[in-house]
Amino acid sequence: MKQIKVFSPATIGNIGPGFDVLGLAVKNLGDIVEARRLSGGKIRIAAVHSSVPLSCDPRKNTAALAAANVFKYLNIKGGIEMTLHKGLPIGSGLGSSAASAAAGAFAANYLYGAQLSLEQMILAATEAEAVVSGGFFADNTAPALMGGATLTRCCVPLDVTRIGSIRSLKIVLVTPNVVVLTREARKMLPKKVPMEHFIANMANTALITAAFAKNDYSLFSRCLNDVIVEPVRSKLIPGFDEVKRNALKAGADGVAISGSGPTMFAITDNLQKARTIEKQMVLTFNSLGIASKSWVTTVDSQGTRLI
Amino acid sequence: MKQIKVFSPATIGNIGPGFDVLGLAVKNLGDIVEARRLSGGKIRIAAVHSSVPLSCDPRKNTAALAAANVFKYLNIKGGIEMTLHKGLPIGSGLGSSAASAAAGAFAANYLYGAQLSLEQMILAATEAEAVVSGGFFADNTAPALMGGATLTRCCVPLDVTRIGSIRSLKIVLVTPNVVVLTREARKMLPKKVPMEHFIANMANTALITAAFAKNDYSLFSRCLNDVIVEPVRSKLIPGFDEVKRNALKAGADGVAISGSGPTMFAITDNLQKARTIEKQMVLTFNSLGIASKSWVTTVDSQGTRLI
Repeated sequence: MKQIKVFSPATIGNIGPGFDVLGLAVKNLGDIVEARRLSGGKIRIAAVHSSVPLSCDPRKNTAALAAANVFKYLNIKGGIEMTLHKGLPIGSGLGSSAASAAAGAFAANYLYGAQLSLEQMILAATEAEAVVSGGFFADNTAPALMGGATLTRCCVPLDVTRIGSIRSLKIVLVTPNVVVLTREARKMLPKKVPMEHFIANMANTALITAAFAKNDYSLFSRCLNDVIVEPVRSKLIPGFDEVKRNALKAGADGVAISGSGPTMFAITDNLQKARTIEKQMVLTFNSLGIASKSWVTTVDSQGTRLI
Repeated sequence: MKQIKVFSPATIGNIGPGFDVLGLAVKNLGDIVEARRLSGGKIRIAAVHSSVPLSCDPRKNTAALAAANVFKYLNIKGGIEMTLHKGLPIGSGLGSSAASAAAGAFAANYLYGAQLSLEQMILAATEAEAVVSGGFFADNTAPALMGGATLTRCCVPLDVTRIGSIRSLKIVLVTPNVVVLTREARKMLPKKVPMEHFIANMANTALITAAFAKNDYSLFSRCLNDVIVEPVRSKLIPGFDEVKRNALKAGADGVAISGSGPTMFAITDNLQKARTIEKQMVLTFNSLGIASKSWVTTVDSQGTRLI
């Protein structure tokens, strides 16, 4: 029986101020799922290749859970065997579980006739991720499947829109070796926000939306600023302030937390500058005794796909 | 000396959820300013033609104040005489004072060599409006001068972006004969907003931005919803709930308050439906003993211009 190979990209949830609304897929970083049909309606994870040990239990794995949701929507007793190659750090705020979920949904749908819409696959992946993360949010699953920047207007019923891309955008990702749990990060959030902060984040989020819709880096360069969530969540990332300051000094047009962290990302439209920013961010974490991984990347406009 | 005639359109501040951020220029409704150079550095309002008596005192008139700001930016002792034809109701939430300010700024700049940028004219008009309204906000002056939908990211320093237009959009405007003072309407606003309301308004505002950037009515049709300001300000408009309900029943895809009201606007992409919606809204106000004025219009993509 035919074997397929699916790639799903890493994603930056929120894109700074757009909490629970915006998301962005990035290139050259993501999960690969090898999959084949299995008879007898079984959903099996053959292996998970990852830098840390991960469970092959299909009830705890987002790729398997997403595949099961796809079969439910297709109203079939489908079977699938998957091998996961985790290409991105887990618990890093880069949408690791969402990438697996997206790849699992895509693979299951593809192997059984590709009958579902992109929106239905996003729903299948988002429901799978909710089992693991405890919250129903599409700000990673939507960009992972659609590519580019996406906007989640509403989760129930799911309403997602692909906004577009910015071709000249260079993204520096730096993941310090510290643990931030999404669930804990979410609990810290304020219940209410001051009117002027609401207006500031809304304006910046709207301008980021315009920037991606118009493929205009100059708009994006001046609005990566979050006055609501970052002041709270940055406290969970040791060295955040210094790293941000040094990234800006090195020429970044903006720095923010990816999803619930601890990955930080910086933006520029110049590759050489991106390398300098990356170096400065890593060095700053180093100087505080914190190891980190880093990448310079761009927008993944395609989203989850066969490779 | 050459006489010029400038038209500046009416504007919908906020476009529903985008409080203090979004604004939209609409067609066939606005102020006309006739202007000519005056020697001796005098700024004079020759006459104001309006349905209600308005002061010709240049210290109280936004067109004169905006012209004075233009001369200040140009660093000249300019003189101008203007005659205003107020083509839109005053205190209606349709940006009446902003239209006059925009026309005044445009006229003064044009008569003295058109040296200022659009952004500088917006600043001149916004500062003029601030004298009269007591608040520095560009959500009417920016669309009045730029046309289409605009996004104010920041007022000080001023950062405005023209987003775009939606060609198929039909806008129903209904202005009931009640008085709402912007200053009072602003005082009623909450100091803090619940996190989930912030996310909802931000998401809707971002999707409206995407809709105008992409010229996509279908996106706009599903996000004209304000859960923060409308619940408070609608209380100042007697009959608001019934009028909104009947507009939606008649086929409107969304209904909201224009600026601080009392004008309400409804959206559709069908002209015949727009006429039906208009009729139902006016009838509903009528049934409550409230007279109203109404228009069916579209986006003014040009903004303030010579005619």
